[in-house]
Amino acid sequence: MDSLLLSRRDLDFLLHDWLDVTALTARERYAEHDRETVDAVLDLSAEIAARHFAPHNKKNDAQEPVFDGERVHVIPEVGRALRVFADSGLAGAAMDRAVGGQQLPQVVANACTAWFQAANVGTAAYPFLTVANANLLLAHGSAEQVDTYVRPMVEGRFFGTMCLSEPQAGSSLADITTRAVPQPDGTYRVTGTKTWISAGDHELSENIVHLVLAKIPGGPAGVKGISLFVVPKYLVAPDGSLGERNDVVPAGLNHKMGYRGTANAVLNFGEGRHTPGGAPGAVGFLVGEPHRGLSYMFHMMNEARIGVGLGAAALGYTGYLHALDYARTRPQGRPSGAKDPAAPQVPIIEHADVRRMLLAQKSYVEGGLALGLYCSRLLDEERTAEGADARARARLLLDVLTPIAKSWPSQWCLAANDLAIQVHGGYGYTREYDVEQFYRDNRLNPIHEGTHGIQGLDLLGRKVVMGGGAGLRLLLETIGATVRRAADAGGEAGALAAELAAAADRVERTTAALWAGGDPDTALANASVYLEAVGHVVLAWIWLEQFLALPDGQDGDGFHQGKRQAARYFFRVELPRTGPQFDLLDALDRTAADTRPDWF
Amino acid sequence: MDSLLLSRRDLDFLLHDWLDVTALTARERYAEHDRETVDAVLDLSAEIAARHFAPHNKKNDAQEPVFDGERVHVIPEVGRALRVFADSGLAGAAMDRAVGGQQLPQVVANACTAWFQAANVGTAAYPFLTVANANLLLAHGSAEQVDTYVRPMVEGRFFGTMCLSEPQAGSSLADITTRAVPQPDGTYRVTGTKTWISAGDHELSENIVHLVLAKIPGGPAGVKGISLFVVPKYLVAPDGSLGERNDVVPAGLNHKMGYRGTANAVLNFGEGRHTPGGAPGAVGFLVGEPHRGLSYMFHMMNEARIGVGLGAAALGYTGYLHALDYARTRPQGRPSGAKDPAAPQVPIIEHADVRRMLLAQKSYVEGGLALGLYCSRLLDEERTAEGADARARARLLLDVLTPIAKSWPSQWCLAANDLAIQVHGGYGYTREYDVEQFYRDNRLNPIHEGTHGIQGLDLLGRKVVMGGGAGLRLLLETIGATVRRAADAGGEAGALAAELAAAADRVERTTAALWAGGDPDTALANASVYLEAVGHVVLAWIWLEQFLALPDGQDGDGFHQGKRQAARYFFRVELPRTGPQFDLLDALDRTAADTRPDWF
Repeated sequence: MDSLLLSRRDLDFLLHDWLDVTALTARERYAEHDRETVDAVLDLSAEIAARHFAPHNKKNDAQEPVFDGERVHVIPEVGRALRVFADSGLAGAAMDRAVGGQQLPQVVANACTAWFQAANVGTAAYPFLTVANANLLLAHGSAEQVDTYVRPMVEGRFFGTMCLSEPQAGSSLADITTRAVPQPDGTYRVTGTKTWISAGDHELSENIVHLVLAKIPGGPAGVKGISLFVVPKYLVAPDGSLGERNDVVPAGLNHKMGYRGTANAVLNFGEGRHTPGGAPGAVGFLVGEPHRGLSYMFHMMNEARIGVGLGAAALGYTGYLHALDYARTRPQGRPSGAKDPAAPQVPIIEHADVRRMLLAQKSYVEGGLALGLYCSRLLDEERTAEGADARARARLLLDVLTPIAKSWPSQWCLAANDLAIQVHGGYGYTREYDVEQFYRDNRLNPIHEGTHGIQGLDLLGRKVVMGGGAGLRLLLETIGATVRRAADAGGEAGALAAELAAAADRVERTTAALWAGGDPDTALANASVYLEAVGHVVLAWIWLEQFLALPDGQDGDGFHQGKRQAARYFFRVELPRTGPQFDLLDALDRTAADTRPDWF
Repeated sequence: MDSLLLSRRDLDFLLHDWLDVTALTARERYAEHDRETVDAVLDLSAEIAARHFAPHNKKNDAQEPVFDGERVHVIPEVGRALRVFADSGLAGAAMDRAVGGQQLPQVVANACTAWFQAANVGTAAYPFLTVANANLLLAHGSAEQVDTYVRPMVEGRFFGTMCLSEPQAGSSLADITTRAVPQPDGTYRVTGTKTWISAGDHELSENIVHLVLAKIPGGPAGVKGISLFVVPKYLVAPDGSLGERNDVVPAGLNHKMGYRGTANAVLNFGEGRHTPGGAPGAVGFLVGEPHRGLSYMFHMMNEARIGVGLGAAALGYTGYLHALDYARTRPQGRPSGAKDPAAPQVPIIEHADVRRMLLAQKSYVEGGLALGLYCSRLLDEERTAEGADARARARLLLDVLTPIAKSWPSQWCLAANDLAIQVHGGYGYTREYDVEQFYRDNRLNPIHEGTHGIQGLDLLGRKVVMGGGAGLRLLLETIGATVRRAADAGGEAGALAAELAAAADRVERTTAALWAGGDPDTALANASVYLEAVGHVVLAWIWLEQFLALPDGQDGDGFHQGKRQAARYFFRVELPRTGPQFDLLDALDRTAADTRPDWF
């Protein structure tokens, strides 16, 4: 079956030929699974995504959610699709059987997710935020919270949100002012305003489970005084039935450039519209211990960042497949040598510049997807690898890779969407075609869950220096192992290995050069450039990994040739971009840093 | 007056300190003008743009034109703004006094245009298409056509369009099928379908003057058989009164990602809805000679490409000013060394990464505007320089620069809009703010008037090889003259001169290397990469030119410091990007060219 969402052939290659996910089924946690169950759940995801999510993607964009001052209205197709999704059991794909999950490897669950992100990010956001919320409660909530909220979320009866940002506190969570005042009965009363709350209000589910960062008065200043609370839209009785309306109400919706299908709300907590239990303030329930809210949230956030990268890759991927389909079927112009105007026009894929744009997209989207799945596989390693040391290494490698797994696809699979528009020419610029929406949807990804700039600071200011540089060493060792395998293989792989080794060496030297002066201001002035350069080196590694996973000693079919060609493209056209970036970093360039605000 | 549209200070610097436009007033054509009239017309443009165009820019986007099957409806603010514009006389700013124009230098007229493009491209498109249409008729139409159509267009009573593309013929105009059959009375009957017709139908003007490419049956195949026709919406009687409705009717509107305020129509000619004179077909009037239509159109197209580049720069510029304003006023976070969470948040311009994004935008948008004005100044040279040789040299330089003047701002000022969104964070992604629209509007520019890929083929396949490479030699000589002046100035200018000289040398060597093999397929396989690399070298030259126009031997004020810093940024961060591009070209890379369609 030809799909314009993702390539099942590529997913099979990545999951089986490369990442060997069925090997995971030898481990106890995944013992009930095998290749067949993995294939079945991917088939199911592809089918539901194509049949129930993709068809209303455009409508969900054109008729975005509306707030009438009281209620948020969403087109009915969203609710119908989400009921099919709930019935499929996919929400709990990676969760424990004990809470109703299927206990599949995370890498498989994330591959399933990618189908929905490719089909309709606006609709898919509702269940995937719910899964993230549930995972956080599973990790840090009480048994009672798990029973009360997680089970209905796995069943698709409750949906969840994450309430972090406030109008005055976006990237700077230290500055949130939402307050949670303890009550004699152990609950809290929450007051404040949160914004950018995806799925913040709607009537798609029986209840909405908000996870809210707030400060308990008297606690430490800054991020050390942030606690986490469950604030349900409707209070839940001990028997699971819905009770009183809690005082969390939408103040309005944000109207986005893309991702329009997801209602994005400003929420007021405790504004006085409702008075649950006859008292003011929204009723909240502390998760875990006081003042540890941000660390709990970052547990979720780190997985969410892998998810953002995968979502960006999925949007890039579907855009690429649309562009490819168009390029194969749209006749326009003739080969550069052909002078006869009476000769028929050729499909535009015959033009070298169009193939260049397609090959660039292929290298970005297949590379981005591969990186996301590699990181997802690391989550499984962290959870199930034999020996605490192996699990710790998986965590460490994932820590270093996370800012890249989030930001690289957000930048380059967005660039792929831009190229997909360009391949379509004027048609690509219209809403009569699909690709302009993919671009608009994907443009969110370099912003949310930590902006591009924040990822750069995280990578250079934290991840590569933590533990005396242990994370960076592990990354370079891991790349080094691939280099050795490729060098041993020799031939073309050996040549690519030499280039990757040189690039990895530059990562090491440049990182050392940046920190040699001991001046964080200068080191971090070009953290985004560092992020982009290291990201490209990591992707070259991912491409060499894929190259090595191809069948040996033969050309293979078109799929294999295409993988090789995309790898070559990445090494010949993309990796060299890093040269000037490393040069700039090595020079400790302060051009931007030294620009005074009044010079603009 | 602070404006978020363009910087008047920068315009004054570019027009006077750098391009010395008042020197043009020594020439007969511009003798009635002086610094005062130049300043007055810029003031007028800035004021009308700010007061009448900018206020409905968002509304024109949100409430795009609607076609009810019969008529195209546009919000009333558009018509009101266009009446103010018509009354201002700005439509004829650069035209001959004989047709009601002001006979201002083209560079001044184009600077005026930029204010409107920054304020509201959707509305501004109507008069600027009309001006382009009028200029084409002035150059190639009969005296009667000038009287009948141009005068009412200059007065703002008629609007104009350009009808080139057809559904099956976009970039490949050789494949148009619209037919024009000669009639005994010397008129033609036109039948066919045109698409992407900006301002193609509306009720904003008394009449719409379509300039239509069509083939006269029996003419040569391909582009050599294309003729140009005037097809008015309403036929015009000899006394100038409007007569019968012609048979050109909208079949529908294209719904674009941006530029929504401009109605973009599919037009049917001669579908039979009307039968002017009782006969079928739309009545058309031949412009100039048969079969020369494409060359006439390219006269217009070349000026339009400069206009596209300037429009892209204007959109980038207003986005930059919005981002700058936001960065100065939005408090978020603290300096990297500040650990006290109780300290107040700082404006985000204090963060080095935000300044990096602002400086990049500044270097793109001021550079793009400067390039567009430089090319506009060449139009004045071509028209009025003393001696045929000087005029021919201006034309030749303009020919080489045109694909860059079109494509470079379309790429990099769009990148500036992307960064403007990023500076705004989540807010930038919402329609509650302005910058996401600028991005969507600007995304058209790499597509229309010849796509990015077409510009690459034009530059490498035609412009740098024509006349035995005379155009490229002239460009390199022109750059060389700047290099010598900068080297003579010494100091920092001298250092920049050395870098530019090396880059220009690479342009020369790489161009020779590409064509050395005599294999156009290989030479042109990476024409887009060539376009981008040469474009960056040209912009480095434009930045060195600006650097040299700054006051000598002193720091100057913040404006001057900012110009220097942006020039440094361009040389340190941007120009080095070309290294890997030239390497790829020198290697005659065929990675994309050799990728077989079935490998994707």
